[in-house]
Order: sequence, then structure tokens, then C-alpha cells
Amino acid sequence: MTGAGWTGLEIEEIGEFGLIERLRPGCLRGGGVVRGIGDDAAVLTFTPGALVLATCDMLVEGRHFHRRYFTPYQLGRKALAVNLSDIAAMGGRPRHVLVSIGLPADLGVEYVEEIYRGMKELAAKAAVNVVGGDTVSAPLLILDLFVLGEAYGRYVPRSGAQPGDLLLVTGELGASAAGLILLLAEKANAVPPEIARPLFAAHREPQPRLAEGRLLAGEATAMIDISDGLASEVHHICGESGVGAVLRAEKIPIGRATREAARLLGRAPLDLALYGGEDYELLFSLPPERAEETASLLRRKTGTAVSIIGECRPREECIRLSYPSGESVPLSPGGFDHFRAEEGD
Amino acid sequence: MTGAGWTGLEIEEIGEFGLIERLRPGCLRGGGVVRGIGDDAAVLTFTPGALVLATCDMLVEGRHFHRRYFTPYQLGRKALAVNLSDIAAMGGRPRHVLVSIGLPADLGVEYVEEIYRGMKELAAKAAVNVVGGDTVSAPLLILDLFVLGEAYGRYVPRSGAQPGDLLLVTGELGASAAGLILLLAEKANAVPPEIARPLFAAHREPQPRLAEGRLLAGEATAMIDISDGLASEVHHICGESGVGAVLRAEKIPIGRATREAARLLGRAPLDLALYGGEDYELLFSLPPERAEETASLLRRKTGTAVSIIGECRPREECIRLSYPSGESVPLSPGGFDHFRAEEGD
Repeated sequence: MTGAGWTGLEIEEIGEFGLIERLRPGCLRGGGVVRGIGDDAAVLTFTPGALVLATCDMLVEGRHFHRRYFTPYQLGRKALAVNLSDIAAMGGRPRHVLVSIGLPADLGVEYVEEIYRGMKELAAKAAVNVVGGDTVSAPLLILDLFVLGEAYGRYVPRSGAQPGDLLLVTGELGASAAGLILLLAEKANAVPPEIARPLFAAHREPQPRLAEGRLLAGEATAMIDISDGLASEVHHICGESGVGAVLRAEKIPIGRATREAARLLGRAPLDLALYGGEDYELLFSLPPERAEETASLLRRKTGTAVSIIGECRPREECIRLSYPSGESVPLSPGGFDHFRAEEGD
Repeated sequence: MTGAGWTGLEIEEIGEFGLIERLRPGCLRGGGVVRGIGDDAAVLTFTPGALVLATCDMLVEGRHFHRRYFTPYQLGRKALAVNLSDIAAMGGRPRHVLVSIGLPADLGVEYVEEIYRGMKELAAKAAVNVVGGDTVSAPLLILDLFVLGEAYGRYVPRSGAQPGDLLLVTGELGASAAGLILLLAEKANAVPPEIARPLFAAHREPQPRLAEGRLLAGEATAMIDISDGLASEVHHICGESGVGAVLRAEKIPIGRATREAARLLGRAPLDLALYGGEDYELLFSLPPERAEETASLLRRKTGTAVSIIGECRPREECIRLSYPSGESVPLSPGGFDHFRAEEGD
């Protein structure tokens, strides 16, 4: 359903300030707000002594999503989820969000309310307050969220990995990319619904790994969330940490639905995992003597799968992908642009 | 000069991460940054016990500006200035900024560097750090800045005005609107350069009233910055404070260049001041017994003009504009849309 398909009240009938008043209820779901929506700036407090984390992610219609395969609820939810994922990747706790939104003239009030419903539901789940933002008219839909979080003394940078540290990921990779390919190609009917459903969910309703990230604060030596694809994120961690790495191809977790969709689409599942992106899983490094214990703790406390997929090496060994045969090849950062240019392997 | 007119290195030649590396120098100009650009989130500290202020403003090409009458330096500078103005209106001190930027394919690296040069120069002047953001490809230029500031115990909301409080503004009003009309109509040559120059500067290089705002913390009972036009902002303050107001038409400060341009354009100067917007001056209320003294202090400490333009009244008296004749009329919020629909008075 497109934005134009939502009928009812038009934004111009109630104006910017009328719209904001309709969106305001349910925005405050955590503490620390002295003044929320309705002033020149939000006024916030943080836990005394906490470090403040700040991140933003802009989603632009036609580049990051199309309205034809996202409901507004999913869009609002995802715009927040991708920002919470950045806070998770620092080992922090999200606290407040500001919402900059550019709205095309053909969107009705109900469509915008649905965007906010998606945001506010996830915000409530994560005890995050919507404290302000900017609402402007724009020729296309733009969602730019700015999330503030906090870390208690210990946060996890990208830069702390040491040679010998093991590399781990949460969950499974490649499902979001497989889902996106099906959505873009409008090939939903090319695969059975029990395959398509989890892949669509992975792309449209990613789960930020907040509990996992916080458990890893003080444990992981480096961490990043997988937004651009595993290959690209390994390069980021290694680049910032000044190390090399080897990834074991057979250890990279890829789910059954992703493998099945890849087969039906004539793609290599491993390419989806390495270069697909938008998984919003956590990639992190742990000292080898702590890796098994920490992975077990994570699984037990969160129910999330955790896989050891490789290890850090001295920088001069570069970044490589090894196969069970013993063969290994240099791993290019690739990322989503590369992925688009490729057709399987 | 349009974006396409800037030649040299293309963004795609160096990629997103190459671009970010070029923009990074000179970003940190104040303290409190544990980790800036280059991780999943910025890691920041604030003064112990300070309240944190958070605001954002999105500028979209074609809605808020056109590239033909802004240099990229001016655009970057203004995108930050309008956010600093929101911090000023709370009586706060800006500390950190995150920059979300959507970049069309026809922009060269040099153009983007100029946007950042404008931002970084103003940031350095205000001791603000550029600590992160998001850089995406977009079909049109989008600048969305998130500014974090702090207030020391006392901040100035919109909601504290009392009946009897006097209403004051800094600087002069209407110049930005007069400048915009000349720029949009490409009538720069219709007025003498000594008239056009200050009006263009008011529109393209607004000065956030940071020192003035901070002096007013603990003094002003309510404050707002004038982004949508004086009439609209008076309605915001009165609405949030639950009061009415009367503005004295003859007291509203309008400069010589604005009056002259209005005459040449066949506009009423007062309409430019009331409904023009983008002045980024401060509108604030003071208890009557403190008003003259505080206004004098402001003038002396900052060199900025300060005018008493009216007073707050009980809510039931509504919001009115009075003339020296004794006549008074209800003042509609108007604002920029209204302004566009009108042709003088």
C-alpha cells in the first residue's frame, strides 16, 4: 500500500502544529525528561557519571526503502531500530530519541500516525522517550532519527580488538538481504510463504540487540553492528583496531530460509551473509580464554544464537576468508554497493 | 553557483568513508568528547549536574533553500546557526553536533568540504564539537543537524510568561524575509547594493544569539527564537504560558535596509517583521520591574539592540497588535505560509 493509498485527514487540514499534537501522546516511556516536545530544545538528564552516547541514521525514500513494500508502521519501527542497534553496538542503553521527518504532500495524517505508532511501540519496549524533533514538508519521505543513550563507565569501541581475539556474531546473517531481493524483484510468490515470511521480517522488522550489547560491555574488546554487511564491518573493526583477521566460511551462520531463498534465486548464500547488509546483528571480538564462557552466558541470558566465526590476526596477515579445504582468499570489504553489482558467485 | 558548477573530485571516486576522512579534521573544538567520528555512536560527557539540551532542524533543498543563491559555505554555516539559535532560546550553551547529510550525485567533494567548512567555522567560534552523523546518497541536498547543549540549573522554557511581563526582542526583524524575496525573485539588481547586502546576509548568514540567550537564563520568564515570524512566535509563547499579549506596532524594530527594500518591492515593512520568519532573533518576556535593567545589561555586554515591543496580558484579552492611534486588532499567528499568500497589507 502506498502513502497515497491512505485516505482520511490530510496533513494540511490540521497543519504542522496540529499534527505534532496528535503524535505527542505516548512519547515518554522512560525517565530523565525535564521537558519533551513543545519547546526550542528538549531538556534531559542522564545518570550521574554516565557517558552519553549519540548517534543518527537517515533513511531516504527511494534509497533506503520504498513505500510499496513497507507499511508506515514498519518504517517508523525500523528507523528507530537501526539507531538502537548503534547504541547496542557500543554496549549502551538508549534513553531518548529526536525525530526529524520530511513529509510529502500526498501523505495523510493516518500514515504519519502509523509511522509514529511503529516508533513509539519499539520505544516503549526499550524504555526510550521521544523528546522532540523537526517536522518539515519534503518532496519525498525522509526519516532521520537521533538517539541518545548512556554507558556506565564501560563502552565498547570498534578499536580494541587484539591479535588472537576471537570474532563472534549474534543471530544469523543474510536474511535481510534475501528478503530485500525478493521485495525489490516483487518475487514474493517465487518462494513458499514459510521461506519468505522470516526473510521479509528480517528486512522490515530488524531486532536491535540491546540486551546482548549491554551484556558485552566490559567483555568485548571491539564491537560493531552489521549494517553494511559482515565483510565491510570486519574491515571497520580491523581498520580501527589495527589488526588483521581470518573468517571461517563454514562458521558464518546462515539460516535455512536464507539458504533456500538463495537457491531459488540462484545466489550464493555466503555472498548474502558477507555483502548483504542490514542484518543489525552484532559483530564483536573476545579474548580467546573468555570467548566460550561469554558466548554461553549470552545464549543463556538472551536466547540469541552466538557463533564464533573467526579470529583476529596481526595486521600484516590482512583480512582473509578461509574454507574447510584449507584454502584462504583475501576478503574485500565489499558492502552493499558491491553486492548490488554482483550476481551470486 | 550550483552544486554541479563545482568541479574536481567526485564523491564516488573516494567513497563515503574517504569523504568522511576528508571532512574529519577540525571537527573537535570544545571539550567533552571521549570518542568522536568513527564509531557506532559518539561518546560524550557533559558538565556534572548540567541539564542536557537536544534539538534538530532539517533543511531540505527546494523547500528551505535553493543552491542557486547559497554558497555551500553559507549553507553549512546556516544549518548549524539555526540549531544553535534553538539552544540560545533555552538560555543554554551548545556543546556537540551530529550531522546527517543527504548528498545528490552531482555534488563534488569540494562542494561538500565547503559545506563542512561553513559548519566548522561557526562550530569553532561557538566551541562546539562535530562528533558524528550519517552521510547518505539522496536525490536532493538534505542537511539535518542535531545539536546537544547544556544548561546549568536554569533554562528558559516557552511556558513561563506571566500577565504584566514585558515582551522584548533582540536585533531587528524582517531583514531575512526581505533578503529572501530579493533572492527568490532574482531582484538583487532592483535595489542598491548597500540595501541588498545586509538583507542577503540576514537571510544567508544569520547570527545565533548565544551570548544574549545565556545572559537571559535566570532572568527571562519565557523565550523562543524567531524562526517562523514574530506573530507566530508570540502565539507559541502565549499558548504555552497561558497568557494573552499586546504588541505595539511602532515598537517593532525594523532596520533601514528592510524598510527601503519593502518600499521598492511594494511590501509593508511590518508584514515582513510579523510574518517573514528566519530572523533567528530572541523573543522573550521579563518581569516589568526587571525589564529596563536587563535590557541595558544585554546591550552593554553584547552590543546587540534590544527592544521592548509589548506586554503579556491575561489570556482572555487574546493576542493583539496596537497602533499609536489607540486602535488595536487581533494578531493572527500567520507565519511563513500566510506570508507567502499575502501581498503587503
